[in-house]
Amino acid sequence: MDRKPKISTRASSFPESPIRKLNPLADRAKNEGTKVYHVNIGQPDIPTPKEFLDGIKEAGIEVLSYSPSKGIRKVLESLAGYYSDQGININPEEIMITTGGSEAGLFAFYTALEQGSEILIPEPFYTNYRGFARMTGVNIKPISTERVNNFALPDTGEIENLITEETGALLLTNPSNPTGRVYSEREINTVKNLVRENDLFLISDEVYREFAYRDTRPVSAINLEGIENRAIMIDSISKRLSGCGARIGTLVSRNEKIMNAALRLGQARLSPPTMGQLGLARFLNSSSYPSAIEEMINRYEKRRDTFLEELDGIEGLRFGKPDGAFYLMVSLPVENAETFVRWMLTDFRARGETVMMAPGEGFYDTPGKGKDEVRLSYVLNRENLERVAELIEKGLTQYRE
Amino acid sequence: MDRKPKISTRASSFPESPIRKLNPLADRAKNEGTKVYHVNIGQPDIPTPKEFLDGIKEAGIEVLSYSPSKGIRKVLESLAGYYSDQGININPEEIMITTGGSEAGLFAFYTALEQGSEILIPEPFYTNYRGFARMTGVNIKPISTERVNNFALPDTGEIENLITEETGALLLTNPSNPTGRVYSEREINTVKNLVRENDLFLISDEVYREFAYRDTRPVSAINLEGIENRAIMIDSISKRLSGCGARIGTLVSRNEKIMNAALRLGQARLSPPTMGQLGLARFLNSSSYPSAIEEMINRYEKRRDTFLEELDGIEGLRFGKPDGAFYLMVSLPVENAETFVRWMLTDFRARGETVMMAPGEGFYDTPGKGKDEVRLSYVLNRENLERVAELIEKGLTQYRE
Repeated sequence: MDRKPKISTRASSFPESPIRKLNPLADRAKNEGTKVYHVNIGQPDIPTPKEFLDGIKEAGIEVLSYSPSKGIRKVLESLAGYYSDQGININPEEIMITTGGSEAGLFAFYTALEQGSEILIPEPFYTNYRGFARMTGVNIKPISTERVNNFALPDTGEIENLITEETGALLLTNPSNPTGRVYSEREINTVKNLVRENDLFLISDEVYREFAYRDTRPVSAINLEGIENRAIMIDSISKRLSGCGARIGTLVSRNEKIMNAALRLGQARLSPPTMGQLGLARFLNSSSYPSAIEEMINRYEKRRDTFLEELDGIEGLRFGKPDGAFYLMVSLPVENAETFVRWMLTDFRARGETVMMAPGEGFYDTPGKGKDEVRLSYVLNRENLERVAELIEKGLTQYRE
Repeated sequence: MDRKPKISTRASSFPESPIRKLNPLADRAKNEGTKVYHVNIGQPDIPTPKEFLDGIKEAGIEVLSYSPSKGIRKVLESLAGYYSDQGININPEEIMITTGGSEAGLFAFYTALEQGSEILIPEPFYTNYRGFARMTGVNIKPISTERVNNFALPDTGEIENLITEETGALLLTNPSNPTGRVYSEREINTVKNLVRENDLFLISDEVYREFAYRDTRPVSAINLEGIENRAIMIDSISKRLSGCGARIGTLVSRNEKIMNAALRLGQARLSPPTMGQLGLARFLNSSSYPSAIEEMINRYEKRRDTFLEELDGIEGLRFGKPDGAFYLMVSLPVENAETFVRWMLTDFRARGETVMMAPGEGFYDTPGKGKDEVRLSYVLNRENLERVAELIEKGLTQYRE
């Protein structure tokens, strides 16, 4: 046998998903018959709207052909209608359908940022931004935010101090995964001014747009006056339509050059998935829209309330009340949260059940931060979330003994 | 309004798809009521197998959830069965499901090749390799092949002369898009030895595997002895199942490091499309497999024979007989084939009909090569292909007057 060739250094050092890396432990537990509650990932358990699925079943597909690289025209038009309902007025030309929000993120990084440049991202952040950054040769510079301040952005000056010649963009996830924060108008204005004054792009990940509870409403970057050519939105139907497996996202910008370049990238992968587009068009033009989304959000809000109440009863847990998305960062009364998360999967069982959480450290770029934290997703029904809280409490007690 | 920020230099110089860039002209012709026959793209008109589509319709999906980043286990197992039927013995662990062959190509380039390194590709080549190379910072070095030799690979020495310190891989498309060549065992052996002796990877794009006519059978890179850890296969169901819009491809390698790194890249985009995987598993386990594929190949072979016969009757056309895929490169009796292709879309009409071809130059990396060539796809039925030949003949006569 031939000697083994070396793979590329960039690939061999490509980061593992901190959320998915413990999957083998969860699989082992399941194979042993243990029931594992997953609050580590954002995979909702709420059914995909029937109209979405019917749109695919009843499309009368004979040849499952490529769609245009930018997406099917009538779907782009339906999406423009959806954005208009959300108070975001854009043309179909300013929208491109991507293979999930992931591809929109990759294209945003590649088109807005030079190789070797820097992007500012409030920390903790969605772990896959690290993947997009690595694939496009961009360096992440974290903007520190703190749980005790409910992850509010720091003052202008503090962010400005991080900006160098190399800084090309600032990324905001609003509402935020993993913190659940919905940024205030004041914070958004700070960002807007910084972006304009320092000649940056604002990449705005708004996949949790509707997931804003009580009376909070996230401001879309696309609506910010004065930075029309700087705002690039990453979006996805995955969460709001419980359709993660369709792999349908969008990239939105009024900047023609960004959209033209993104289209050329899109041509190099030919087409986003066709079937999800057909389902989406059907749903957006059905009588279930927008009520199905509203009902879903109501369910998440109730889940949030239940989950927070249950977690509140556990001694030693510290967390702020999230206003949006379906995640929260929780500080645990342990030294190393990842060790605890692993132990829950390998050693802890209560009536044959355990919980899988996402270790918090992976959401930070600053070494050592988030060591005692976990990210929890409230994507399960209320009964299951009550059980999850119970299992975490039991686990902590047993672990610390 | 704010001044416009600059997009990244790499994005602003990202190549446009030479196949798709003339789409606006074709759209304009259609809007004026002209019928345009598309022999410029590889979008087959043959129906997707019913079992594939039923597999999606009848899957009883309630929550359209993410699949594992590597693909659904039972689909990977079905794929291993398919490969075994093709004489390629690999385990499900050596397969990863990707978002189309495009993503498999991108992952292959990223994992096998360093930033700034070189890849050798016989020219003319599939234009999107340029996109993968650009996205991953890899430089393409073309291996010249000639229409008059039916695009056979040159001798070992000639290829070896192209290899430098920077060369990391050689890519073969077998059967070839755009030439239709099925490489001989002698050629494959040449490549195998070169790859081993020069410490390269062999990236083998085998999406047209079954599209080999008469008695030719392409050799899979995965079966080559002595380079087990060097072979990386790009594959896709798009053509053989007429399912381009499903966006289901595979990356296959016995090299564990490549597969582990590809999985980490895959985690950063979460999941390949779920629905196409369900359709694929159903099809591969149905009684229509493999007969539906065999019948399709027979139809293509008849199309090829019809098309070649018709093209043979046109004065001034020069081309070799392709043994595989569904493309051929044709030299036209014009100085600049792209100008002619444009003219066919803007000026030429016969009974309200015209033809769209792909200008050949875009398939070459060497400046000036392929200027008088077009790539034609025989993805239409025989009656339409006869009409296409007729329109090309009429067009040429009129154009040269």
